[in-house]
Amino acid sequence: MSHTTIPAAGPADITHDSELGSVAQLAAQLRVDSIRCSTSAGSGHPSSSMSAADLLAVLVARHLHYDWDEPDNPANDHLIFSKGHASPLLYSIFKAAGVVSDEELVKGYRRFGERLEGHPTPELPWVDVATGSLGQGLPDGVGIALAGKYLDALDYRTWVLCGDSEFAEGSIWEALDKAGHYHLDNLVVILDVNRLGQRGETELGWDVDAYAARAESFGARAITIDGHDLTAIDEALGQARSAHDGRPVVIVAKTVKGAGYSAIADQPGWHGKALPTEMAEQAIAELGGVRDLRVRGPRPAAGEPHTEAAQDAAAPHWELGTKVATRRAYGDALAALSRRDPLVVALDAEVSNSTYAEQIEQVHPERFFEMYIAEQQLVGAATGLAVRGYKPYASTFAAFFTRAFDFIRMGAISHADLRLVGSHAGVEIGADGPSQMALEDLAMMRSVHASTVLYPSDASSTAALVQEMSTQPGISYLRTTRGAYPVLYGPAEQFPIGGSKVVSKHDDDTVTLVGAGVTLHESLKAAELLASEGIHARVLDMYSIKPLDVEGLRTALGATAGRLVVAEDHHREGGLGEAVIAALAGSAPLRLRHLAVEGMPGSGTGPELLAWAGIDAEHIAQAARELLSPQ
Amino acid sequence: MSHTTIPAAGPADITHDSELGSVAQLAAQLRVDSIRCSTSAGSGHPSSSMSAADLLAVLVARHLHYDWDEPDNPANDHLIFSKGHASPLLYSIFKAAGVVSDEELVKGYRRFGERLEGHPTPELPWVDVATGSLGQGLPDGVGIALAGKYLDALDYRTWVLCGDSEFAEGSIWEALDKAGHYHLDNLVVILDVNRLGQRGETELGWDVDAYAARAESFGARAITIDGHDLTAIDEALGQARSAHDGRPVVIVAKTVKGAGYSAIADQPGWHGKALPTEMAEQAIAELGGVRDLRVRGPRPAAGEPHTEAAQDAAAPHWELGTKVATRRAYGDALAALSRRDPLVVALDAEVSNSTYAEQIEQVHPERFFEMYIAEQQLVGAATGLAVRGYKPYASTFAAFFTRAFDFIRMGAISHADLRLVGSHAGVEIGADGPSQMALEDLAMMRSVHASTVLYPSDASSTAALVQEMSTQPGISYLRTTRGAYPVLYGPAEQFPIGGSKVVSKHDDDTVTLVGAGVTLHESLKAAELLASEGIHARVLDMYSIKPLDVEGLRTALGATAGRLVVAEDHHREGGLGEAVIAALAGSAPLRLRHLAVEGMPGSGTGPELLAWAGIDAEHIAQAARELLSPQ
Repeated sequence: MSHTTIPAAGPADITHDSELGSVAQLAAQLRVDSIRCSTSAGSGHPSSSMSAADLLAVLVARHLHYDWDEPDNPANDHLIFSKGHASPLLYSIFKAAGVVSDEELVKGYRRFGERLEGHPTPELPWVDVATGSLGQGLPDGVGIALAGKYLDALDYRTWVLCGDSEFAEGSIWEALDKAGHYHLDNLVVILDVNRLGQRGETELGWDVDAYAARAESFGARAITIDGHDLTAIDEALGQARSAHDGRPVVIVAKTVKGAGYSAIADQPGWHGKALPTEMAEQAIAELGGVRDLRVRGPRPAAGEPHTEAAQDAAAPHWELGTKVATRRAYGDALAALSRRDPLVVALDAEVSNSTYAEQIEQVHPERFFEMYIAEQQLVGAATGLAVRGYKPYASTFAAFFTRAFDFIRMGAISHADLRLVGSHAGVEIGADGPSQMALEDLAMMRSVHASTVLYPSDASSTAALVQEMSTQPGISYLRTTRGAYPVLYGPAEQFPIGGSKVVSKHDDDTVTLVGAGVTLHESLKAAELLASEGIHARVLDMYSIKPLDVEGLRTALGATAGRLVVAEDHHREGGLGEAVIAALAGSAPLRLRHLAVEGMPGSGTGPELLAWAGIDAEHIAQAARELLSPQ
Repeated sequence: MSHTTIPAAGPADITHDSELGSVAQLAAQLRVDSIRCSTSAGSGHPSSSMSAADLLAVLVARHLHYDWDEPDNPANDHLIFSKGHASPLLYSIFKAAGVVSDEELVKGYRRFGERLEGHPTPELPWVDVATGSLGQGLPDGVGIALAGKYLDALDYRTWVLCGDSEFAEGSIWEALDKAGHYHLDNLVVILDVNRLGQRGETELGWDVDAYAARAESFGARAITIDGHDLTAIDEALGQARSAHDGRPVVIVAKTVKGAGYSAIADQPGWHGKALPTEMAEQAIAELGGVRDLRVRGPRPAAGEPHTEAAQDAAAPHWELGTKVATRRAYGDALAALSRRDPLVVALDAEVSNSTYAEQIEQVHPERFFEMYIAEQQLVGAATGLAVRGYKPYASTFAAFFTRAFDFIRMGAISHADLRLVGSHAGVEIGADGPSQMALEDLAMMRSVHASTVLYPSDASSTAALVQEMSTQPGISYLRTTRGAYPVLYGPAEQFPIGGSKVVSKHDDDTVTLVGAGVTLHESLKAAELLASEGIHARVLDMYSIKPLDVEGLRTALGATAGRLVVAEDHHREGGLGEAVIAALAGSAPLRLRHLAVEGMPGSGTGPELLAWAGIDAEHIAQAARELLSPQ
């Protein structure tokens, strides 16, 4: 299948000033094409596409300001299918816009190696973000709208098509809450209330007033319409387009699932099912047959995003041996970076005085977005900002990024470059107890596609890695520590992603101690304990957990007869230890002790809990002694 | 510190018919004790406790029906501090109730080895669920209220104290949505609107009307009061107690953070800070000094939960070789189990026709709870049902459990026995694309404290493991597959947790192939391919990924010269492969190939995608050949 984008050729059949009668023809074509591609694929969601076909036909013909030949035009409106399963409709629009061929639509949909996937992804140039996990397109759209209003200062609109079932997701309400709070009158939600979910009636059925009341209570302007009345749709979209009252618009459209084909309209049992060939033929006949209309809606006004000039700002540096928390170094480094790089923005979940993200707020308040305690929206907004070319750094307690795991996973599918920074890692945090202790975050972040996982031990390496992250593609994660520990490195030291550092080394080392974050400091103390007993240990700072410096590890183990103690302030599964062990598997013989948090911690001081967990200097030293004692 | 619960001795100073003047004295004591314990600990959240002291004093004295000597009394009301950081207030209530000594309160709070942790956990017999990750106590409370109304049929109330900051969490709105949908008039939310969050004013400040409007729009009855007016509080709690109109009650209480001590009242900068000793002394003086009042509120009416009789129901069984999807076997097995075990309940996130949880709905609709598309609430409700002694099985697509990771993590801290079942694992699902493919779930679930992770390959083992899970403590997770594969085992075969099965074995095996789920079937096919070339492979079904059968693995590897191919339909990090490699690290030498999903999948058929990912039979066979070829 050719994936070449088709240049717009010849005059369009339908333009922004066409009569609604022509738009009705377009809507019929979108329904027919939704049926054709899904029946050809043997799967997909035609009925969920048909309910929204009238809404989208009017939008694309008359209200979406979009240059189909230049999807990167910064002045383009943005169109997100938060109900990503309605991909047949979206792809049928692409065909109607003339950028995807009918052949690709019908023969490529849902096929191996093709870009018209079951749910939209940015493999397609007209798709901003991957959807398909419900309740994510809208939070992402809030991020784009934030960029439009507060950074780009461009008048584009962000249009988000939502399904009614996904309005049960809390993330939708996080998004509407932020849309209201930030007065995003450049954001329009089109809610397709087709009443039927995957397994029967949705919670609220056709109670459009309930949806409207909820949206209004969250600060939006709700407009309730019949989602098959083209005039009403046109009027509502026009109102939304011209809205400037500081409120996002939610168009609550009462629709019929499967609308356009009487045999399935408003019938249960047709969610996520392609029509059998014979029914598809009947449906196409009922819809007036196959059409090949071209639509070109309004073009965007010319415009370039506002850009700020870069300023000089030295990276922070610290005296060797000074005690500095890596979370504080993150804040300092980010503030400095934000002066040098105008694309750097920061997002917080109401803990910036703990993560030290507040440092950037003091320098560049206009590039600091407070998401309050809403971690899904934190990552969703970061994704939307990344769509607009910004470099978001989103920070909260490391433990609370678990709240946003699905958004992080989907961010990877969206090819979004997200920089996530989690503070308060592990039992080291002490008295607050296990609810605040990240002990699963490394496993979570390592498992994400093409992710980068960093865990610096001192301020200098933290600052260097904050800089490295700014050009790193994909999802990168930096884990910071609550307590203050000595600065180990000078300001000129380099910390390439994928590297490691030998921080203690002798010619007669007999065991390698691997740590990161607080356990590196414990490993250094363990090396001192061992040295006092005449045992020399090599200590490795494994600041880059993914990718991992396998060569550096092998060299150290080669010098120490394969003896290795790896200690981590994290559960045993999926973290630093397993990363190291997996990287070495099958190579030279290994004599190993893997120290990790096994029990359920309670409160206490950091040192008490590190000792309790068996990951402090004394336990590391003891593990080394055991490896060295005759078997 | 002695953790012995103190028996209620002597007459209480304050009872349910005491004047509100005495209750005011109790409120002052709660404030003083909140200050004393946090100042003694040097950390904690006194100001967040003081804002809610009046609300809780009236509740505990006059409206909470609770037998402090018998926290397991099934007729007890439930009290959840969703704002878990107000633990000083909660523990001060425990002291006032006479079940925790003043010494433990002041000297034990936030100390190592003590049960009065920084945030409440069920280490304390009066605490149902761990809180401290905001926005979780209310979803958990919805689960308890569901149990009370629909299963126990007891008239207890569930009272949940929420902070205003946490109302930005989407999970709160998932909870209120379900509370409205299920007409939980036995649920009372006390919203402490103290205006100040961790880093300044909350999003809505003191706009109590906005909170009330949102709550009403989600189906609750909102009662707005001054949270320091004891008469108003008493009236509102009384109304909530006697509510029977099918609506949950949300008491929106306007309060002052730090109320009771003029130096910090309504002042920013006092979140999460213990008062320095001198200020604490001033505060205690301003509050009238230290008191030692005992409170005993109303006792619960006697009552036992409704229980159903167990019925005979044979476990389902299947003919060897029949093709059955493990997701379907899960549904069948759960339906049968629910007849035998009246405590078994099921929860769905609007995909029960895909996960086959709908099977139990057909048998026991009263024990099936539809959470719609709200995965956080899915797990939160399961946690609440587990608090009441039920055995929840919560299922959705495996990928979407990432949405609930924080709830799963907190469930482990709550000591909740949760059974989670995730379907549609890996690239095997085919055309729907990566948004629907769980490729991180094994890493996520393995990283959870004391979790159990199961991944059966056929219907028989699935049914056996569904049964095993019913008595398994902690968080257990079962991964099911979309497609149908041959039944490998007879109905009498046992599948203990922590075991494995040798499914193909010869005396002259030279390589071990390890798989689970779809990759076990691919490994079996690979073994056939290899056999046709004269190479004998041992095939291991690693159905229990955590705990892992290390002995079984070692035996197989001992017989095959340490040659191992492990294939998994999951990302490389944190799944089956790393579990196997970590378990074997440091033991006999290993010659290893670890096949896992590396790239970003698109759509396609299952077989196409398994081949693309390099985890199908041909790739497994090729990896084995490479291990066997001379180096």
